Amino acid sequence: MPEALRLALSQQFQNRFSCGDSTRLQHGRDESVHDPMLPWGVVFAESTEEIASTVALCAEYGVPIIPYGVGSSVEGHVLAPRGGISLDLSGMNRIIAIHHEDGDATVQAGVTRKQLNDALKGSGLFFPIDPGADATLGGMAATRASGTNAVRYGTMRDNVLATTTVLADGRIMKTGGRARKSSAGYDLTRLLVGSEGTLGIMAELTVKLYPIPEAISAAVCTFPDVDAAVQTVIQTIQLGVPVARIELLDTLSLSAINKFSKTTLAEAPTLFFEFHGSPASVKEQAETVQAIAGDLGGANFEWAIRPEDRTRLWQARHDAYFACLQLKPGCRCFPTDVCVPISRLAECIAATNEDIAQVNIPIALFGHVGDGNFHLVVLVDPANEQDMQEAAWISSRVVERAIAMEGTCTGEHGIGLGKRKYLPLEHGEVAVDVMRAIKLALDPQQLLNPGKILPPAGEKN
Amino acid sequence: MPEALRLALSQQFQNRFSCGDSTRLQHGRDESVHDPMLPWGVVFAESTEEIASTVALCAEYGVPIIPYGVGSSVEGHVLAPRGGISLDLSGMNRIIAIHHEDGDATVQAGVTRKQLNDALKGSGLFFPIDPGADATLGGMAATRASGTNAVRYGTMRDNVLATTTVLADGRIMKTGGRARKSSAGYDLTRLLVGSEGTLGIMAELTVKLYPIPEAISAAVCTFPDVDAAVQTVIQTIQLGVPVARIELLDTLSLSAINKFSKTTLAEAPTLFFEFHGSPASVKEQAETVQAIAGDLGGANFEWAIRPEDRTRLWQARHDAYFACLQLKPGCRCFPTDVCVPISRLAECIAATNEDIAQVNIPIALFGHVGDGNFHLVVLVDPANEQDMQEAAWISSRVVERAIAMEGTCTGEHGIGLGKRKYLPLEHGEVAVDVMRAIKLALDPQQLLNPGKILPPAGEKN
Repeated sequence: MPEALRLALSQQFQNRFSCGDSTRLQHGRDESVHDPMLPWGVVFAESTEEIASTVALCAEYGVPIIPYGVGSSVEGHVLAPRGGISLDLSGMNRIIAIHHEDGDATVQAGVTRKQLNDALKGSGLFFPIDPGADATLGGMAATRASGTNAVRYGTMRDNVLATTTVLADGRIMKTGGRARKSSAGYDLTRLLVGSEGTLGIMAELTVKLYPIPEAISAAVCTFPDVDAAVQTVIQTIQLGVPVARIELLDTLSLSAINKFSKTTLAEAPTLFFEFHGSPASVKEQAETVQAIAGDLGGANFEWAIRPEDRTRLWQARHDAYFACLQLKPGCRCFPTDVCVPISRLAECIAATNEDIAQVNIPIALFGHVGDGNFHLVVLVDPANEQDMQEAAWISSRVVERAIAMEGTCTGEHGIGLGKRKYLPLEHGEVAVDVMRAIKLALDPQQLLNPGKILPPAGEKN
Repeated sequence: MPEALRLALSQQFQNRFSCGDSTRLQHGRDESVHDPMLPWGVVFAESTEEIASTVALCAEYGVPIIPYGVGSSVEGHVLAPRGGISLDLSGMNRIIAIHHEDGDATVQAGVTRKQLNDALKGSGLFFPIDPGADATLGGMAATRASGTNAVRYGTMRDNVLATTTVLADGRIMKTGGRARKSSAGYDLTRLLVGSEGTLGIMAELTVKLYPIPEAISAAVCTFPDVDAAVQTVIQTIQLGVPVARIELLDTLSLSAINKFSKTTLAEAPTLFFEFHGSPASVKEQAETVQAIAGDLGGANFEWAIRPEDRTRLWQARHDAYFACLQLKPGCRCFPTDVCVPISRLAECIAATNEDIAQVNIPIALFGHVGDGNFHLVVLVDPANEQDMQEAAWISSRVVERAIAMEGTCTGEHGIGLGKRKYLPLEHGEVAVDVMRAIKLALDPQQLLNPGKILPPAGEKN
């Protein structure tokens, strides 16, 4: 790191700038199997202006800058392949405004989804996007996150109305606005959502809120095989039932959850449902889905009506990832996350299960199947070459299959470093060229989260 | 026009290339008050490859190219301020694929919304976005159109999944895909939607379809004043009632409609509603809204249950624009179209009505108030200077008010030529700079629909 930059940051941020090894290590790794890549130092910013001045300083010295929320991403987004400054935004945790009548909230980027929902308690409103981890809203916007509720409420793409963003030269830009729709110029908000910190650093964002449904009910139902469960999902979606959540977990996932969460769920292919609406509409939705599931061999429909039972159920679902990690002590997870048109979902999962049968490493399958999105938790010992080879093989098989089915290499995790090589396969070279042209137009020095989504100009994937 | 270009286009397109005066005039004006600006010639393209070769030829000769659908836009989008070639896409009218199980359709850009819905008859699916005019889907995507159903189904922003787009150099790019969600790279689809043909020409697009609701009912209700009607809308939206349509029309609009459509609707501030869902849910929604309206003085709730009655009702609503044009023979419409957060809607409309009371020209007010979006149909004799001055005054008043209320200068019409000057006011200079950087990165010669959204580089708004 240029000594002058180190001095300038020390002077401005005092003990909110650290070059200590443990801080750098904490900010140079993520939840996945990627090897750590450490930044040179970490700045803990607390305002948009502090982000802007840090970015401007880094621009002056040609030093990379990598935004950091809570580090829950899984495709290497927070790693520092070219060193530079990790910009920790967890101190940007102020809720700036809640507009109850308009159903929106403006927050600093470091506010987490649970923090926002806590602040909304008693208002009759909630923020639905729920990727499992208690991620920051800035991080969720940066990776275009979604999760269990997306089948009903959309993803971050649909739920960010406006941003305040720091550009690569330190200028502060406003995008979007609080009107529910607009045709006023290029959709810079949507361009930033999913750009993984490579075009600008979102410092504040305005997100949509929703009225808490009058009635909510959740249910669990087991199936004789994965295909019957998937067919139930497909028929439910095609019928237009407005389910709020519809999640598939395979037998291995259930067994891991039971061990981890001390639950006694049946260890079989299972769907978790949640229905939102008026009491009459929830009843109607539940009856329709129960009839579909029943026809396909679904059994043991168990209802969770009380809020505490629902919370327990969804906590178990959210623990699936960590529960699976316990299946193989000391292991790491090689993440996959694909999404296909719903008509191809059964075929895609069936073929994936055939691949899984061919390898030795444990692999759990679960996901947000209402969107056609599912994950594999592929458990590896990173030091074991065969594990890593098998994981790479299964990952490329499922990704290439999803793309061949007109799906995507990532439904919600993002490209980061891990999925870069699939971008031209999915979108074609021309679209990738256009992405690069936009990147270079907005960040000519390529300092904003370098190497994520696109390799540095001139380098191969 | 360069003679070599004329020769090349004549040779390739034969009688699908015209430089005739009437064809040029037809393609150089729109539905609004903007003075015509004629292109040098018109190409009638019938395939993506024909668009690509025309764009490549124009790029070679440095000649502007302006995409044209049915010419129903109202902010000067199809005008040719620097001459060039108008690219008529109405012959791009092939429905390429309907995926019933996935609820999406891929169409050429010249397919109109009614054509798509005709093709869907009997499938149980429909395409909801309805801006009134039977616009092409390409044109609707280019202006980020919405209309009466947007409060329930979103705008074109939310409903375009993928595009095939011709870039400024003639290369063909694919964006997006058929998966319902993706985190794979920059959201080029959303960048193109609303870019008004200035970043690329959409040749094909894939749009979302929806199951036709089991039950639909529509209703009309009159109010003692506009404020009571607007308060009914606000309470309905804040309660989270999933209305499919909720439209306000003022007394002048109703009187124009009665004359034009031979209807006998009460000439008072009126809301048109439509409810979609299961029979029970539609009943529930209607009861809730009726109770809200009743409390606010809403009366004469009239129901249209039969499809033909509903069609008549919505046809009358869609005719409002043309009905209003008849109020002043020989007049043209000076369009306005703003959208504000719903909490500011009553105040915005009340202040606008005070402005309307101060001018002599007839002005009707109606719109998609469930989104906070409303239009003024400002009727002017373009030759009458006082008319034009009054219209400009009222338009700037309502736009500046909407922006001051954290709203937008255009909810659904787009920027075109007419709203360019408001773009920096709404988004700030930094965001406009970024829009220009993207424009120059993708269209360095500034040949794609020049002067729309942004003035040519170096020129003032």
